[in-house]
Amino acid sequence: MEIKVTTRQRDYSIFIEHGLLKKARSLIGEGFNVFIISDDGVDDKWISILLDQYPDSPLFRFNHGEANKNLNTYRDILSWLARNRANRHDVIIGIGGGVVGDVAGFVAATYMRGIRYLNIPTTTLAQIDSSIGGKTAVDLGGIKNIVGAFWQPSLVLIDPETLSTLPSRHVNNGLAEAVKMGLILDEKLFELFEGDYESHLDEIIERSLILKKEIVEQDENETGIRKLLNFGHTFGHGYETVGEGRYLHGECVAMGMMTVLENEEIKERLHKVLQKLDLPESCECDNEKVFSIICNDKKSAADGIDIVQVDEIGKGHIERWSFDRIRRKLG
Amino acid sequence: MEIKVTTRQRDYSIFIEHGLLKKARSLIGEGFNVFIISDDGVDDKWISILLDQYPDSPLFRFNHGEANKNLNTYRDILSWLARNRANRHDVIIGIGGGVVGDVAGFVAATYMRGIRYLNIPTTTLAQIDSSIGGKTAVDLGGIKNIVGAFWQPSLVLIDPETLSTLPSRHVNNGLAEAVKMGLILDEKLFELFEGDYESHLDEIIERSLILKKEIVEQDENETGIRKLLNFGHTFGHGYETVGEGRYLHGECVAMGMMTVLENEEIKERLHKVLQKLDLPESCECDNEKVFSIICNDKKSAADGIDIVQVDEIGKGHIERWSFDRIRRKLG
Repeated sequence: MEIKVTTRQRDYSIFIEHGLLKKARSLIGEGFNVFIISDDGVDDKWISILLDQYPDSPLFRFNHGEANKNLNTYRDILSWLARNRANRHDVIIGIGGGVVGDVAGFVAATYMRGIRYLNIPTTTLAQIDSSIGGKTAVDLGGIKNIVGAFWQPSLVLIDPETLSTLPSRHVNNGLAEAVKMGLILDEKLFELFEGDYESHLDEIIERSLILKKEIVEQDENETGIRKLLNFGHTFGHGYETVGEGRYLHGECVAMGMMTVLENEEIKERLHKVLQKLDLPESCECDNEKVFSIICNDKKSAADGIDIVQVDEIGKGHIERWSFDRIRRKLG
Repeated sequence: MEIKVTTRQRDYSIFIEHGLLKKARSLIGEGFNVFIISDDGVDDKWISILLDQYPDSPLFRFNHGEANKNLNTYRDILSWLARNRANRHDVIIGIGGGVVGDVAGFVAATYMRGIRYLNIPTTTLAQIDSSIGGKTAVDLGGIKNIVGAFWQPSLVLIDPETLSTLPSRHVNNGLAEAVKMGLILDEKLFELFEGDYESHLDEIIERSLILKKEIVEQDENETGIRKLLNFGHTFGHGYETVGEGRYLHGECVAMGMMTVLENEEIKERLHKVLQKLDLPESCECDNEKVFSIICNDKKSAADGIDIVQVDEIGKGHIERWSFDRIRRKLG
C-alpha cells in the first residue's frame, strides 16, 4: 500500500507492506551515499537486512531510550557525518522507534541546513504516529522536545514484520496513540480496540496513518487542527518527564487521556480498552512536579494552555484551560 | 526606508534609518517577552539603547569571534531560554554582527521548533549581507556553517549609526561583500567603490540589500541563482578555516575573489578597489590544507564543485570545476 503525503516542504510516499525492508534499496533509489542511524533497542535482524543492501554505508548506533535523545547524541551524530564526509546530496536513513526518528530527523534537518531523511519505523509508536508529520526534536534540561525542527521525510517505509521482535509492552505503547486517534477523529478505529484488535493490527496502523496524514496535510506547522493530536499529551508529557524513564510515551498518553477526560461514559469505555492493552491509567508520581512541567510546556500561553477534550467519540475539540484548572485536575 | 521581503517561509520588512535603534520597540511591537542575544564585540552603547527600551528582558552575551560560533554556545543559549521560560510566542532579538546573527538565528530556528527572530545587525557585513536571507548556522569540527537551518527573520532593523563604533578593519571587512555584489550583479555598485565610496556608504548598503533581497526571493533555499552569492566564498571559506581567526570573513572573500578571477582586466580593477579598502589579496597559508577544506565543503559534489566566475562586471555565472582544477588554481 502506498500513501502519498503532500506538505508545503515536500511531497513524499509512505509504503506499508509485509517484507518491505528486504527491498528497501529498490524503493530508495541510487546515486547518493547513505548514512544509517539507529539505536541498540532495534533488533540486529532488521539492521542486518538493511546493511546487506548497503554493505559500505556507515552505521551510527546509540544507546536506546529517551535519556539519550539529547544534544550530546545530536552532536556525536553530526560529527560522525562530517568525519565521513556526508554531503548535501547524501541521505540519512533512520531505522528504529520514535527516539531514533526524532534524533535522526533533527540531524537531517540541520546538517548542512537540511539533507534528505528516510524513515524506517520499527515500533508501533513510530509506525502509527511519529514517523510522519515532520516533527523532529531532542530534549534539554528535562524538557521534552524543546529543541527541534519541522523536517518532512522524503520517504517512509513501514514493514509490519519488524513488530515481530518488539516486546508486547512496546507494541501496546504504540497502540495508545491509535486509541487516541480513534477518540479524537474516528469512532470506527476506537471500536476496533473494543473487539478483537489483534487480528486487525494492519488495519489499525493504516487507518491511524491515513488520519495523521490528513491532519498533517491540513496543518503542517501545528497552528490549528493538528493540535487535536495532543489529546492526552499535555498531562502525558508531564508524567513522562517526572517518571524519568519509568513510563513509555504511549503509556503516559494513556494516563494523560484518563486524567483529562470528563465524559464518564467515554472514560469507562477507554478504561476497558486500556485494561485490554495492559496500559496504565493513573500515574504514581508527584503531581506538584507534573504541574510545574506542564506550566513550562512549549504549548503553554500566559493565561493557560490549550487542552484537547472528547465529549463524543471521534470528535475531539480544543479548550483553553487556566493553570488553576489544570492544577485541580491533577488532584 | 522600508524594504519588504517576500519568502516562502514568511514576509518581513527591513527598515534602514539613522537613529532607528532608539525607536526599536515601537517597530517591534508588544504582547510577548523579548530575549536579547549579543556578544562582547558589540559596543555597550548600542546594547544599552536597546535595554533601555526592554529593562526587564534577559540578555545573553557571549565572547565574540568565529571560534565561539559553535554547538557549545548554541546549547548555552538554548538552556538560558529554557531556564527563563521563553515560550513559542516570545521573540529573540539578535544584536550584533554576522556571528551573533548566525547563532541567534539558529537558536530561534530550533528552540521549540522555531520562534520569531528579529535581527539588528551592527556591522557592515551583517547590514549588507548576512542579516537577510535566512541562513543560520554554527561551525563544527573546523567546518564552517556545517550545522544550521534556513530561518527567515520576522524583522530587520538597520541603524547605520552603529557603524560609528566599528573599527575600520571591520567596516572594510563588510564592504568586501558589497564589492562582491557589484561584481556579480551590479556594475554601478562596483563603480561606486572606484570613486569616493565613503560618501556613498548609505547607498552602498541599500543597493546591496536590495540586490540580496531579490536573489533570496527568487531562490530561498539556494538551489539556483542564489549560488552566485558564493562568488569568492569557496576559496574564501578555505582561507577562513585554515587562517584560524587570523582573517575576517570579508577579507577571506576578497582573497577568494582574487584567487578565482580569470579575467585580467577585472582582476586589475578589483585589485585597485581592494587596496583602497585595505583588504588582503592573497592568503599566506598552507594551500594543501585549503584544498582539503574545499573538498569537504558542503557545496561540493562527487565530481567537483560549482564555482562562480565573472567575465563581465555585473554578470556572474556558475561553472563546475573539477577538484584538479581547484588544486591547480591554489598554486
